[in-house]
Amino acid sequence: MTLAELRAQYELNLFESVIPFWSKHSIDREHGGYFTCLERDGSVYDPRKYVWLQGRQVWMYSRLYNQVERRQEWVDIAASGMDFLLRHARDEQGRYYFRLARDGQPSFFQRKPYAAVFAVLALNEYANTGAGGHYRAQAEDLFWRVVEWIRNPALLGRAPLAGQPAFRSLADSLVVAKMALELAAPGADGRYLEVLRDGLRESLEHHDPARNILREFIAPGAAADLPEARLFNPGHSIEAAWLLWHAMERTGEWQYRQRILDILEGSLEFGWDREYGGLYYFMDVEGKPPLQLEASMKLWWPHAEALYAAVLAYTRTGEARWLGWLERLHEYTFRHFVDSPEYGEWFAYCDRRGHLTHTLKGNHYKGCFHVPRVLLMCIQEIGRCSSTPGDGHTPG
Amino acid sequence: MTLAELRAQYELNLFESVIPFWSKHSIDREHGGYFTCLERDGSVYDPRKYVWLQGRQVWMYSRLYNQVERRQEWVDIAASGMDFLLRHARDEQGRYYFRLARDGQPSFFQRKPYAAVFAVLALNEYANTGAGGHYRAQAEDLFWRVVEWIRNPALLGRAPLAGQPAFRSLADSLVVAKMALELAAPGADGRYLEVLRDGLRESLEHHDPARNILREFIAPGAAADLPEARLFNPGHSIEAAWLLWHAMERTGEWQYRQRILDILEGSLEFGWDREYGGLYYFMDVEGKPPLQLEASMKLWWPHAEALYAAVLAYTRTGEARWLGWLERLHEYTFRHFVDSPEYGEWFAYCDRRGHLTHTLKGNHYKGCFHVPRVLLMCIQEIGRCSSTPGDGHTPG
Repeated sequence: MTLAELRAQYELNLFESVIPFWSKHSIDREHGGYFTCLERDGSVYDPRKYVWLQGRQVWMYSRLYNQVERRQEWVDIAASGMDFLLRHARDEQGRYYFRLARDGQPSFFQRKPYAAVFAVLALNEYANTGAGGHYRAQAEDLFWRVVEWIRNPALLGRAPLAGQPAFRSLADSLVVAKMALELAAPGADGRYLEVLRDGLRESLEHHDPARNILREFIAPGAAADLPEARLFNPGHSIEAAWLLWHAMERTGEWQYRQRILDILEGSLEFGWDREYGGLYYFMDVEGKPPLQLEASMKLWWPHAEALYAAVLAYTRTGEARWLGWLERLHEYTFRHFVDSPEYGEWFAYCDRRGHLTHTLKGNHYKGCFHVPRVLLMCIQEIGRCSSTPGDGHTPG
Repeated sequence: MTLAELRAQYELNLFESVIPFWSKHSIDREHGGYFTCLERDGSVYDPRKYVWLQGRQVWMYSRLYNQVERRQEWVDIAASGMDFLLRHARDEQGRYYFRLARDGQPSFFQRKPYAAVFAVLALNEYANTGAGGHYRAQAEDLFWRVVEWIRNPALLGRAPLAGQPAFRSLADSLVVAKMALELAAPGADGRYLEVLRDGLRESLEHHDPARNILREFIAPGAAADLPEARLFNPGHSIEAAWLLWHAMERTGEWQYRQRILDILEGSLEFGWDREYGGLYYFMDVEGKPPLQLEASMKLWWPHAEALYAAVLAYTRTGEARWLGWLERLHEYTFRHFVDSPEYGEWFAYCDRRGHLTHTLKGNHYKGCFHVPRVLLMCIQEIGRCSSTPGDGHTPG
């Protein structure tokens, strides 16, 4: 399979199956915002609004409008979610809820900063649709609040306890890098580039050189006997690899190049199930039992993230090993997750052996985000490079 | 297989495999309390102390001492956990943490009342070992605090939100009934019997007469489109059936007898996987996708609870259909979960098709509780009735 053939397949999937599914089924025309708990055929099985996914879908439709085509329908969909988010998702202290009732009343607060992270991305991308600089200003303001919440979780209601080690979370370093990368557009305040440099450096401090993976948590040595210190999330480590590659390109810190490629390869090798195929959800790096019941399941999003990571590594290096991974990942993903165009979108969850465990297309964590974002990035990346991939993006 | 043969098998499993496993591997002789994150061979993979399981193991060893044999080793093990619990598990407001560091320092607070529920059961059963009335007094004091926390979750840090329906949780009604049943010993304050009557009535309000199951949540009609309102946890509904049967015997409200048997049969029928065998973990009663990733997995504890429920229904009614269920459950359970005596104890988690997903014997929710409690209750119940079961316990 050539890159051009892959690109054609991703275009077909994105524009004929995935985006139509969300445009048709997720819009709440009565109360605004997006349904995301959607069955195989798009019917709603939970009408509540999950805030992570409101922000993610605003980002996605804004991105389509900004980078694919200035289609009015897309910016209208983005606007409806943006309005719903700003009207309902915040408490009186400006913190973001995790879940709202269908009509927007608050329903659950998660004590985590991630709902706000996706609001930052939404506000910033929506600002670029031409909606106005005040969205950009709100994105910047919220960005600094999120940085503060991550530094001091007591502000979200999680006071530190004496017996809990001060773990540093890969998720926290990555979301900061992710936001900073989007905010650090050419001409923006230089502070975002500084934060991006910090996020890149801190994320790489999770590198486990023996396995060439990123561990989810690092902490003082005393915590080495805790499961958190041994936790590996293959999809997360793989997503980190491509994100950090982009961060490196933005900051120009090419000294990280080989380490990022090593992390990508190590994460694919260590995370891949050699018996049944697919990437595990969670692993204990020493092979001890994970605390998560769903650890050995195969989820859609690690495979989606890995597809793009493999495309990027191949187009930027031209090395055949990445094409091998791309083919293996593509085959597994399209066989297990991609549904027929009659229904659209992707399934989400398989057991270790690859049997589908749920028929849903969306829930409280799966919305209009991972799949279309990855497909779009693959299409753009393949389009950007010539049909003969190579190392052209790396300075000599 | 006769009841006497089953009893012999359960005695062998309990006293030669299960209890020796916990006595040998779970005791922390350095800091007190119990390790519960134990691998197949008993090695510790997380040394932290999970508070639910500290209370449960104190209860279990106290119960063995009180009802099986006054063995010094057993009461010493109970005493070590009781002491650890009282020294470390509470915050300055008397609320119980979910997790402690190995040395007892607080590590996580869950905003739920269940850690305290198991402390009530531990204090009460430990008091009966002859440890002294002040443990009973502490159990009673904590009982009323738990009742208050359930009534007003804001006291645990979960303030009600305008968009969240006031669901009534089966778990809450059941734990109150469970505590009241143990506290309402003959001669005790009559208020426990009153609470037990309320708990029995409120639990039965979860009855779904179309399916003869108990639903996890009930709420005003407006919430009928939410997944909580459609959630069925077969193991929980089955555990409820035997618990409510005991509650009925204690309060003398025999009018509930048929409904409880109907709920047991309906829960087994609806919860059983007709394709691969075993009881599902979570189900949506309308067949919509459950939000839990682990919904279709087969867990050890619903099968353990169902074993005892089937024994009880058979010994109390003498009806052959219960023996049929008992045989089916016994066969599935001993084939999938019970490990060889060389290692001891039971495994915990299988996927839908019955393949083991974890090799662990204990974690943050599985400790020395469900398995030995159910085996002991089965042994006692079979011993209590003659070899010809019948309805002797129900007044004419």
